Amino acid sequence: MTAPWITYRPELKVLDCTIRDGGLVNDHAFEDGFVKAVYQACVEAGIDYMEVGYKASQKLFARNRFGAWKYCDEDDVRRILDDNPTQLKLAAMADAAKSDWHTDILPKKDSVLDMIRVAFYAHQVSEAVDMIKDAADKGYEVSANLMAVSTVTELEVQQVLEVIAQSPANVLVVVDSYGSMYAEQIELLVKQYLEFGKQTGKIVGMHAHNNQQLAFANTIEAIIHGANRVDASMAGLGRGAGNCPMELLIGFLRNPKFHIRPIYRVIQDHLLPLSRKVEWGPFAQYNITGQLNEHPREAIAARAGEKRDCYLEFYDKLTIDV
Amino acid sequence: MTAPWITYRPELKVLDCTIRDGGLVNDHAFEDGFVKAVYQACVEAGIDYMEVGYKASQKLFARNRFGAWKYCDEDDVRRILDDNPTQLKLAAMADAAKSDWHTDILPKKDSVLDMIRVAFYAHQVSEAVDMIKDAADKGYEVSANLMAVSTVTELEVQQVLEVIAQSPANVLVVVDSYGSMYAEQIELLVKQYLEFGKQTGKIVGMHAHNNQQLAFANTIEAIIHGANRVDASMAGLGRGAGNCPMELLIGFLRNPKFHIRPIYRVIQDHLLPLSRKVEWGPFAQYNITGQLNEHPREAIAARAGEKRDCYLEFYDKLTIDV
Repeated sequence: MTAPWITYRPELKVLDCTIRDGGLVNDHAFEDGFVKAVYQACVEAGIDYMEVGYKASQKLFARNRFGAWKYCDEDDVRRILDDNPTQLKLAAMADAAKSDWHTDILPKKDSVLDMIRVAFYAHQVSEAVDMIKDAADKGYEVSANLMAVSTVTELEVQQVLEVIAQSPANVLVVVDSYGSMYAEQIELLVKQYLEFGKQTGKIVGMHAHNNQQLAFANTIEAIIHGANRVDASMAGLGRGAGNCPMELLIGFLRNPKFHIRPIYRVIQDHLLPLSRKVEWGPFAQYNITGQLNEHPREAIAARAGEKRDCYLEFYDKLTIDV
Repeated sequence: MTAPWITYRPELKVLDCTIRDGGLVNDHAFEDGFVKAVYQACVEAGIDYMEVGYKASQKLFARNRFGAWKYCDEDDVRRILDDNPTQLKLAAMADAAKSDWHTDILPKKDSVLDMIRVAFYAHQVSEAVDMIKDAADKGYEVSANLMAVSTVTELEVQQVLEVIAQSPANVLVVVDSYGSMYAEQIELLVKQYLEFGKQTGKIVGMHAHNNQQLAFANTIEAIIHGANRVDASMAGLGRGAGNCPMELLIGFLRNPKFHIRPIYRVIQDHLLPLSRKVEWGPFAQYNITGQLNEHPREAIAARAGEKRDCYLEFYDKLTIDV
């Protein structure tokens, strides 16, 4: 009998998605000081990657409706972190069908970004493969993030993995978009992703949502079963119920390169003030959509309205009045 | 490959500790309407046990400082639920060294209670055995709750289990008092408790705290490894960071005897209003004491003071200024 939870795996790397996933809470309109503070905290905490936002299509998403982190123009990113003279690597996310990736993702030599994370639904896997190849050809590390895997059948997941395993993606991420999955499901998926990924040397990652207060636990579960690239965000900031809280994850990891103090500082100085303006976290409506394995959009709408305290009406709407 | 998470174990039973553990938040001063609403929700939800409070010593805890649920006098309990003409069983907790159990715990024939839960620290195991025998002799089901097991060495846990396994206790509960334990630790302890308990046919239970947002996840983990008696509370009400939320647990369990709707109702109508008067939940200070495997008392004090938003100062106090 040993105690593996007090040692560590050096190859385990952490990605901060505070600005990217958190942007879904405030239309990506973070002030520069906020983004700089998160960047600085990531650097000081020894975090490996910071995802600064989306590469979203300006044709689909009008410039005047969103903040800079919806697009991550090179000038905006460099305004915050210059040429990024640190060990921290930078990532941006491009969604299938929502990104003009041919033109908007620059060759790596012209960009401060290090990684492109390609997010897609199962039926979009073919465009995803094109996006992955494009980003790899341009010189980036690439991650393949199959979203909402909890709604995809086992056969379809297998098909996606077969295709993606042959792509130049470096990382395959298990994404629990609806925060609906339990530990046993995480275990099965991580093992399956590892099995397909090993043929071509791919790393497996985990991106969890906190609808059922399981984001941190499921991230630990993924780590136990071999995931070596895990996402978290400061104070769990992220759409709806939010993500795995970085302060909990770093408190759990035992690699001495990680430091938790800068994380509590940025939470105290920036996330706590933000929480008085916008809302995220595992409120009852998110518990319910998580339990039902549904997209959180109904819960987000309910939390934003006058009936945010009417849990029973919300429960009935999703379960009885259908 | 099967999907065990959509079936159920009929022998798995749930205990509601809203009033008992929640009483530590408000000095046990719940209004009758609140206790009745929780009782009614437990009955309608198909919950198996409700823990109504403590049997605490009136010599140590002056009557004028605490509400009725610190003592659970027979008259107070019956005022709420009469002779309890339902399937729901009733429990009360007695702490070693804090209870006049010889006199205050009545013979079962004179009490509406069904179960006594004996809570003790490792060094109090001898008094605990006397308490367990006394309660069993008086006619109750008995549970043995070794508190703060995360601070006890493996040898000492083994010693406690050897002694308790020979007692007439029906249930041995893994108690993560500080909310500090991770899934692998829960697995080891549940297996160890099961091993000792099987000689004398004892059930193993789980009582989790939510300091690291792991209460629900660790309860699932305990269930996976064979715990058949698990604690939860409405909206997670409980000391400090609170407990495993009942609404999440019942959403996870697939036994059709359980119903979640009455739980969302009592949360909406009673717990949400209470949350505007008293505070519980996994705030940063509780994350920190959980990570450090410490009693939450410093965190409770910090949350109650003017510096409740000074996370960094609190972190430094517990880690650097020592």
